[in-house]
Amino acid sequence: MALRSRLAGSVSLQIWPIHHIPEIQPGADLAELLRAGIQDSGFTVQPRDILAVTQKIISKAEGRMVRLSEVQPSPEAAAIGRTSGKDPRLVEVILGETKRLVRMRGEVVICETHHGFICANAGVDRSNVEGGDVVTLLPRDPDRSARQLARQLGCGIIVTDTFGRPWREGLLDVAIGVARVPLFIDYRGTPDTKGYPLQATNLAAVDALAAAAGLVMGKTSQTPAALIRGFAWDDASTGIGAILRAADKDLFL
Amino acid sequence: MALRSRLAGSVSLQIWPIHHIPEIQPGADLAELLRAGIQDSGFTVQPRDILAVTQKIISKAEGRMVRLSEVQPSPEAAAIGRTSGKDPRLVEVILGETKRLVRMRGEVVICETHHGFICANAGVDRSNVEGGDVVTLLPRDPDRSARQLARQLGCGIIVTDTFGRPWREGLLDVAIGVARVPLFIDYRGTPDTKGYPLQATNLAAVDALAAAAGLVMGKTSQTPAALIRGFAWDDASTGIGAILRAADKDLFL
Repeated sequence: MALRSRLAGSVSLQIWPIHHIPEIQPGADLAELLRAGIQDSGFTVQPRDILAVTQKIISKAEGRMVRLSEVQPSPEAAAIGRTSGKDPRLVEVILGETKRLVRMRGEVVICETHHGFICANAGVDRSNVEGGDVVTLLPRDPDRSARQLARQLGCGIIVTDTFGRPWREGLLDVAIGVARVPLFIDYRGTPDTKGYPLQATNLAAVDALAAAAGLVMGKTSQTPAALIRGFAWDDASTGIGAILRAADKDLFL
Repeated sequence: MALRSRLAGSVSLQIWPIHHIPEIQPGADLAELLRAGIQDSGFTVQPRDILAVTQKIISKAEGRMVRLSEVQPSPEAAAIGRTSGKDPRLVEVILGETKRLVRMRGEVVICETHHGFICANAGVDRSNVEGGDVVTLLPRDPDRSARQLARQLGCGIIVTDTFGRPWREGLLDVAIGVARVPLFIDYRGTPDTKGYPLQATNLAAVDALAAAAGLVMGKTSQTPAALIRGFAWDDASTGIGAILRAADKDLFL
């Protein structure tokens, strides 16, 4: 089955930041810029490598940016702006990316995006963008962005973003798009060290890789990508959707 | 402030599995066995190294095991056993580790442990334990276990366990105890690439490291530890408790 890897275990991982990526403009040839950055960082891409790429540079290359000064807030956005203290134009952009408002308190708005991701501000982000007037949106189809880069670069791709989570403080980088990388490592049914079948160990490998990549990518330095070497897998995923759990099946909520 | 690291960014990470750890018996000198395993795996511990250690071997060394055949289920455990189909003796052990039952459906019981961790079966685990009659409990004070190992081995320690999470399928290794490793990397207030202060980027470094370590430790192979090299930090954490978010402050629920 294409979603899960049955290999893994005694691998060792190496994760390097990729520097030398210039400011990304809409329409940029991202694969070419990444290839050059990887080369200038001293590496050559190998087929079993995985490149983690922040959504930010993909969004910029794909022109997923909105100029707030050109946004007309709807009455709903204006009302939310009044109660939350958020810029109503920013709220308008967030609502456009939102399938469902999960929670609002003060300035914090937790949304389910049209993709099904649950995150603050529906992934709309003001940081690292020119002038403060421009915000980025998540890529429209991060799996498609990942597949294109995987084809062009000849390695696995994980598109990452930095999300909060329930129960625990602090953010983690997670996968929001994937190509040629399995979502899971499935140990279920394999015998444990005593010969009993393991019952519930299905590791979310793609998110673990994203989290680790997030550690080396930093947030302020210009390292919007990380090269991961040493992760072994049998087969690859078909898209990030299969990691999203339907709310009615979620025993953690 | 001791909880957060202000350094990081352009580090590169290497993560190796530690083999050659024998079956752990109660009272075992875990530090000595880990030191030997690290050496037999070809490494020498350096002060800035971090060793991720699964709770399982710590629990075994600390004798945190219960023989189900010696457990008398309470009426409450018997009732839960009847409705859930779970072994009532196992339920009894789980209830003893539980501060609050979060959810039950079928055989799945999500609990808040006395430590404040939210996980299936309150961390009580049947796998990789002799005979199927014995279950392990989480260490009583995983921070204390971590501090002791950190003193003995002279490196950072993260005690890990494998938890499910809301919204997303698949499990991730997370930190349940920590010594000499910061919980967070705090980018808040630092300028982004455009000079605007980042507002909400406080990475849960200790969980990202745990997740990455989980990828190389496997679940069935005898690699209950992983050595992490390359993570740079200024100062270290004082305990895992500060990463746990109070339910009334949790906008993700």
